[in-house]
Amino acid sequence: MHISTTPDANELIVSPCRAHREEDKDYAVVFATPVNAKGITLITTPGKYPERGEEAQWNWPDSGKGAKISECMIVFDDVFVPWNRVFMCGEYQFSRDQAWLFGVFHRLYGASAIAVERELKLGTAALMAEYNGTDRYPHIQEKLAWMAMDTVILDVMARAACEHPDVFPDIGLVAPNTVYTNIAKFRKADECAENSKLLADITGGLIATVPSYKDWMNPKERPFIEKYLAGKAGIPTEHRLRAIRLAKDLTSHNVDQAHIHGEGSLAAQKMHVFASADWKRYKAIAKRIARIPGWEEHPDLKHLPDWPWDYEF
Amino acid sequence: MHISTTPDANELIVSPCRAHREEDKDYAVVFATPVNAKGITLITTPGKYPERGEEAQWNWPDSGKGAKISECMIVFDDVFVPWNRVFMCGEYQFSRDQAWLFGVFHRLYGASAIAVERELKLGTAALMAEYNGTDRYPHIQEKLAWMAMDTVILDVMARAACEHPDVFPDIGLVAPNTVYTNIAKFRKADECAENSKLLADITGGLIATVPSYKDWMNPKERPFIEKYLAGKAGIPTEHRLRAIRLAKDLTSHNVDQAHIHGEGSLAAQKMHVFASADWKRYKAIAKRIARIPGWEEHPDLKHLPDWPWDYEF
Amino acid sequence: MHISTTPDANELIVSPCRAHREEDKDYAVVFATPVNAKGITLITTPGKYPERGEEAQWNWPDSGKGAKISECMIVFDDVFVPWNRVFMCGEYQFSRDQAWLFGVFHRLYGASAIAVERELKLGTAALMAEYNGTDRYPHIQEKLAWMAMDTVILDVMARAACEHPDVFPDIGLVAPNTVYTNIAKFRKADECAENSKLLADITGGLIATVPSYKDWMNPKERPFIEKYLAGKAGIPTEHRLRAIRLAKDLTSHNVDQAHIHGEGSLAAQKMHVFASADWKRYKAIAKRIARIPGWEEHPDLKHLPDWPWDYEF
Amino acid sequence: MHISTTPDANELIVSPCRAHREEDKDYAVVFATPVNAKGITLITTPGKYPERGEEAQWNWPDSGKGAKISECMIVFDDVFVPWNRVFMCGEYQFSRDQAWLFGVFHRLYGASAIAVERELKLGTAALMAEYNGTDRYPHIQEKLAWMAMDTVILDVMARAACEHPDVFPDIGLVAPNTVYTNIAKFRKADECAENSKLLADITGGLIATVPSYKDWMNPKERPFIEKYLAGKAGIPTEHRLRAIRLAKDLTSHNVDQAHIHGEGSLAAQKMHVFASADWKRYKAIAKRIARIPGWEEHPDLKHLPDWPWDYEF
Repeated sequence: MHISTTPDANELIVSPCRAHREEDKDYAVVFATPVNAKGITLITTPGKYPERGEEAQWNWPDSGKGAKISECMIVFDDVFVPWNRVFMCGEYQFSRDQAWLFGVFHRLYGASAIAVERELKLGTAALMAEYNGTDRYPHIQEKLAWMAMDTVILDVMARAACEHPDVFPDIGLVAPNTVYTNIAKFRKADECAENSKLLADITGGLIATVPSYKDWMNPKERPFIEKYLAGKAGIPTEHRLRAIRLAKDLTSHNVDQAHIHGEGSLAAQKMHVFASADWKRYKAIAKRIARIPGWEEHPDLKHLPDWPWDYEF
Repeated sequence: MHISTTPDANELIVSPCRAHREEDKDYAVVFATPVNAKGITLITTPGKYPERGEEAQWNWPDSGKGAKISECMIVFDDVFVPWNRVFMCGEYQFSRDQAWLFGVFHRLYGASAIAVERELKLGTAALMAEYNGTDRYPHIQEKLAWMAMDTVILDVMARAACEHPDVFPDIGLVAPNTVYTNIAKFRKADECAENSKLLADITGGLIATVPSYKDWMNPKERPFIEKYLAGKAGIPTEHRLRAIRLAKDLTSHNVDQAHIHGEGSLAAQKMHVFASADWKRYKAIAKRIARIPGWEEHPDLKHLPDWPWDYEF
Repeated sequence: MHISTTPDANELIVSPCRAHREEDKDYAVVFATPVNAKGITLITTPGKYPERGEEAQWNWPDSGKGAKISECMIVFDDVFVPWNRVFMCGEYQFSRDQAWLFGVFHRLYGASAIAVERELKLGTAALMAEYNGTDRYPHIQEKLAWMAMDTVILDVMARAACEHPDVFPDIGLVAPNTVYTNIAKFRKADECAENSKLLADITGGLIATVPSYKDWMNPKERPFIEKYLAGKAGIPTEHRLRAIRLAKDLTSHNVDQAHIHGEGSLAAQKMHVFASADWKRYKAIAKRIARIPGWEEHPDLKHLPDWPWDYEF
Repeated sequence: MHISTTPDANELIVSPCRAHREEDKDYAVVFATPVNAKGITLITTPGKYPERGEEAQWNWPDSGKGAKISECMIVFDDVFVPWNRVFMCGEYQFSRDQAWLFGVFHRLYGASAIAVERELKLGTAALMAEYNGTDRYPHIQEKLAWMAMDTVILDVMARAACEHPDVFPDIGLVAPNTVYTNIAKFRKADECAENSKLLADITGGLIATVPSYKDWMNPKERPFIEKYLAGKAGIPTEHRLRAIRLAKDLTSHNVDQAHIHGEGSLAAQKMHVFASADWKRYKAIAKRIARIPGWEEHPDLKHLPDWPWDYEF
């Protein structure tokens, strides 16, 4: 129904995605077919961006290459499949095993592929911290450390699924460790948004407003951009722009980024809450219970008894 | 440096964004100017999508209207400002108050505006659960409940900032409660990604592969789409597609969504871990410590002493 | 079945806790009874600590007063209830309303009571940061800011449940806003453990090893404790100890605290990961994709093509 | 300053815990000493519980054995150390390496030891779900799956630190992988509270009110306890009580547990929010933006224009 990369492929292998019962046996099939067989229609998602060539590459360094547009829905309308390419046909009792086996290998692939992609996200965050000159700030280091932990866990879990496989000696099968694989795949998906949030946070508000290729190539605008968007001394503005465009691309081209930075960054709000919370009152409450003198002057507490030592128990 | 909505505005009000010291006094200015004054350059972000008109509206129901393209960088190059539109000029000691006052009102605006936008996200998630026929599943209800809690907290905190304002009687000022406002603004930004993740999760893999306007309008494809993408009985396929397009638009048009659903959804992995974890072993460990019989047969534990009652203490 | 504070009460009011159907009607009762009525047995939890009097108060400033020991199970074994104290008897169709109404008021009580207790936890954390001399460290301020946000949200949500109640004009009832109340109660419970973790983290390893009353009162040990456990200049060691005992009491007297600090604190691990992660590699990966020179020297990447500009699309 | 298990040890090895500079050289020492050497004072934490023997074991199956009371502070007051037991004396330039090397091995120990303890917590949670008859509820399975993922990650990361060590060929040293070790140790501490919360949540309110040994041994109470605290059919009440006591012990003997269950459990609040949130309104908002008919009747929206198709752009 929804498949990636099919338009780039030569052959399709079709397989059940769940267990079947006898009444489902017509769906219990496994077969291979050329993608361009008569009767197959691919309804693909359109490309994400209107730009082409150098402009696409500058604006969208990761996805602008034309790749990543190949999600599609596949319709089979009376497609002929030669018998020697049919591997299962109605043996519904094997659908569960087939789905399981496909699942565990596919999930391992997914977790492994994204381990690499997450390293790219992590590297982009580290580069932005360097280019913005913020890599000495503790809250930036804390965020980078979190991203590094998450990236390494994904890598280690996927590799451990291979190093400590499930072994089925009776059928001579060694398959990825199913628990480790599913944990890796879960984290791939579950922490994706948090990584994007942190990358956008570290990049700064320019992730929303960074100039595009046409602005950068415009000789009237270039001097302004060179001057006002310069980052850390010694880093060419162009390098900083390229890194920001990559961050924008990796976290998507959408309003979430504006929401993170609109009206001040996450760190600004935390600082403000820290600066404005009524610490005198909170500390006085704690002092009273801990029997440390000094709470008696606080206006909210001064009418309270010296609690509660006036009764026996 | 990075500002929203300026291209749509008639007038700009320029103001410090931080405290100044005497040596910064040249920057301690507040003034108003028409946006089209001589010497002002706006370097705007390009529109997000190539589509126009009905197609844009169908594909991107929220952002495809042409709005939300107005992030920009403003360059002032020798702009004349008449003296009667200058409100502060060098009085650096007031920059802090001006920045603070702007900040608290602006953050209240941000939190309030997004409270509404988050209700849209929440409503889209609820609609998708209904159209997919999954609104009875506990894990879907759990996710919707979390989104509802988050949305309501944002709404209540922003409103409470107005209901319980900070009062400055000496200058006759009532301003939004600064702690409540900053908490609301923080949550607006901090939980944005989590809401997007949950919306994408509830929508399903079609958030990546949903057909676009041109496919929907293509008479050869329409019957396939009508048939295979039908959701719950009684809901027109078109309504489901419109809701999915809205979900795609609200969570951005990017690879994160594919990552959430690629190789199976979040719930699939949790179910798999639950189904495959070595519960017998974990329970045997607990039984041994709790002195409940039955752990002795477990192969990992059977060589262990009946712990540790063979010593005195 | 499990009830708090009953041993301290004079009267019990018994009420359904869920909806009933006709076959449950024998359980659809509401009545009041003195706690010491014949046939009532309270099986209470024992006191938590062996200490009594001054020692209990010193060691456990919050819970050591003898309070908080009153959880119990109530057994009714043929208890006589006079008819004039019976408010519902078999009218099963009202059980749902009765349970709902009790629930919403009780949850509001719970959220409100814990809002105060969480202020105590927050104040103790702020006091510990001050006494340890760590209140200038960004990671400590970040943790305090988080705790303050959580505490204020609980307070605002519980108050908003009263300020914006649910109104039932047909029966003349105004009840706490049920959505706000349940959100407040949820956060009371859900974030309790996180607050305890942060308080233990801020307090430091002494939360596990802090001397007790008997050590403090021992004239041989006192000089060592005075000298080696002194905190910030100007704060009497006794005050610091009292604050640590309060932190220990509020986060429980258990091994979780040792786990947080054993082998170095949370911040130490994050610093270590930040210091040791392979940033050169991660940055090189990002540079290659962003087309920023410099990645070509990295040993893991140098064999890779200058990606992927050698093909057309 | 705060050390575990010393009272149970025969020998102490003293070592720097940080880098030193020349002026700190008096502290740059490594030596071994018997714990009972003249001049050494251990100020230990008192035992946690007043019970002894069988009662302690019943009430506190894990910690009631008398163990886990050995946190202490060590005071050295003019202790003689023979020269042949001194391994470093003033060579401050090696303090950093010594601290690092101790740290990485110690953290690996900590993570490995707690991996086992966390399996005990996980097993106790699984046992409670079984004994309570709740192990078919999706929200219970979700929580168990989360705990299993966390436990397995800790185990895999600690093991991977050994399988993929840091190698220092010039000095012939193989040490635990420092990044993996620190990630494992971080998660040991960081997720400890979340695991305790989930275990308490799964156990239910009885974690606060479960009877103690003396109640269980009391022949008058025993029949009530046998009857009213019976769990799933076929499980002896005593086994359920033992499992609950273990859960209570593992999550500490404190008020946090009462907070989780007081006024209804976490799941109850989520269900309530799901049942009471204004879904009609939220869905209508989404329908209006997605251009799906049906929103026009909602009282909050009916005055709004059919947005925003009345303008060109």
